[in-house]
Amino acid sequence: MSWFETPFELLRYLLEVAATIAFALSGVIMAARKRLDIVGVCVVAFVAAFGGGTLRDLLLDQRPFFWVRHVGFVWGILALCAVAMLFMRQHHFQPTERAMLLPDAIGLGLFAAVGVDVACAAEMPALVAVMMGLITGVFGGVLRDVLCNEIPQAFNDHRPYALCAFVGGWADIGLRQLEAPAWLTLLACVVVTAGLRGLALWRNWQLPIWRV
Amino acid sequence: MSWFETPFELLRYLLEVAATIAFALSGVIMAARKRLDIVGVCVVAFVAAFGGGTLRDLLLDQRPFFWVRHVGFVWGILALCAVAMLFMRQHHFQPTERAMLLPDAIGLGLFAAVGVDVACAAEMPALVAVMMGLITGVFGGVLRDVLCNEIPQAFNDHRPYALCAFVGGWADIGLRQLEAPAWLTLLACVVVTAGLRGLALWRNWQLPIWRV
Amino acid sequence: MSWFETPFELLRYLLEVAATIAFALSGVIMAARKRLDIVGVCVVAFVAAFGGGTLRDLLLDQRPFFWVRHVGFVWGILALCAVAMLFMRQHHFQPTERAMLLPDAIGLGLFAAVGVDVACAAEMPALVAVMMGLITGVFGGVLRDVLCNEIPQAFNDHRPYALCAFVGGWADIGLRQLEAPAWLTLLACVVVTAGLRGLALWRNWQLPIWRV
Repeated sequence: MSWFETPFELLRYLLEVAATIAFALSGVIMAARKRLDIVGVCVVAFVAAFGGGTLRDLLLDQRPFFWVRHVGFVWGILALCAVAMLFMRQHHFQPTERAMLLPDAIGLGLFAAVGVDVACAAEMPALVAVMMGLITGVFGGVLRDVLCNEIPQAFNDHRPYALCAFVGGWADIGLRQLEAPAWLTLLACVVVTAGLRGLALWRNWQLPIWRV
Repeated sequence: MSWFETPFELLRYLLEVAATIAFALSGVIMAARKRLDIVGVCVVAFVAAFGGGTLRDLLLDQRPFFWVRHVGFVWGILALCAVAMLFMRQHHFQPTERAMLLPDAIGLGLFAAVGVDVACAAEMPALVAVMMGLITGVFGGVLRDVLCNEIPQAFNDHRPYALCAFVGGWADIGLRQLEAPAWLTLLACVVVTAGLRGLALWRNWQLPIWRV
Repeated sequence: MSWFETPFELLRYLLEVAATIAFALSGVIMAARKRLDIVGVCVVAFVAAFGGGTLRDLLLDQRPFFWVRHVGFVWGILALCAVAMLFMRQHHFQPTERAMLLPDAIGLGLFAAVGVDVACAAEMPALVAVMMGLITGVFGGVLRDVLCNEIPQAFNDHRPYALCAFVGGWADIGLRQLEAPAWLTLLACVVVTAGLRGLALWRNWQLPIWRV
């Protein structure tokens, strides 16, 4: 694990730690609901945590991946899965859909911010940068659901989710155009995305129903 | 959007526009049948349109992707999805499997031709070039079906589909060996693929049934 | 097809041939059980055989892929699928889950060894090298199951499978640390992985059940 040259790099690192744990937990809970074995739990947790960022790096042709640079994270995910399995068994803890909402919302905002930042560093056009933020935030969950043989929740639960990351990404891009400092664009993306998601859940916003 | 150096590049560009719209529509129709929300419709349309070509470029290690070079296409897909949703709701238009056949057949031939061309430019062996044409044409639909939690239609509907692109790709490669001009190889691939597909549907050809 | 500079390269080549055939057969059997058509059988066999290695090479950014360097393999897979379909139809051969166990176990050990070797050549950290072995061995089957719209067998059948490749990979890495010759590390990984898998099936070991 390397040291950080600027406080901003430290902030981004801490953001990625928090988001990674949040997403891995969403993978553990989904795997538990599907009654996967320990291998399935670890792989689905890993894919939920790193799948979005890895897909973004594949598309942007960036190497090495985050989890290759920071191998400690992979050990952390394995430990998290072991602890979660023991804890859930001990406490007869029934993971509910409700329990997945909070880690998902936080991780979404954090990952979108990091994704936009990486894409902008690779000099992508604005729309592509926003898409990369969205992919980083949403496709971990999408790959998790595909592996668990479900239609991705992000596509059919009719509550705004990816849309929040889309708006948050544009907030980030907008502030970049105004030459705002890096910490501010990052913060704006996180707050707008997670805030909108929270608001959407609290007010029970629904995406228009597709009647055919 | 850049200008074109030769008429041939313009032709290839126009082909990609037409094929992209056709495939995006197949994604919209599939998403509508699965009752996805607006986010799901846009993502599935995007994956159906650009998934095959993006997978090909990932495998051939070609960057930037078509949709990064021509960001206008992504805006176009988003607009298409919005219009399609409004239109379908207004007109109580029930998308049927029949409605998906024509755009699929056209897109298949067009994408296969482009895929073979890109692979040949990357100096791939003939069989790999044909496979890349097939991937470009077929895997947009395969990824669309995987995201919608279906066995890919290309693999189990027993009507020749990918096979048409396979034959069309070899027609393209054969003409290249004879040093035919580029526009002719492109045209041959499109006509053979789309023609065979049309013929297969019209005459109701069936792939042999696997009896076990 | 190129010649081999050392006996070790020949051994690795032969390993890849044997593992490729074993995995392609597992794809054919799965496709037959899902009643896919000839196109589906070929694609699923191809993905089962080359999917793990291709995903590894994508992640490690290694080109050209094995099947691009050795196009003969692709022709071989196509021939294998044709022969298997004819044979199964002639003999009313009902492929059972039991028939899939042996080729899977052999292929798993062989592919894991090759994956660890490639990752070590790319100077990956030990844990990532083991993961790459696991991905090479397991993700062909995972992609096969995802295409066939099943929860991957590797994740939910509660019999040790990926875990065997994980242990085998560490055996390989451990011998590398002791500067054992290349053929020995390769052999150790294959024997440990396939041996553990055989033992697990024979003694009917079960991964702990997740009770929630």
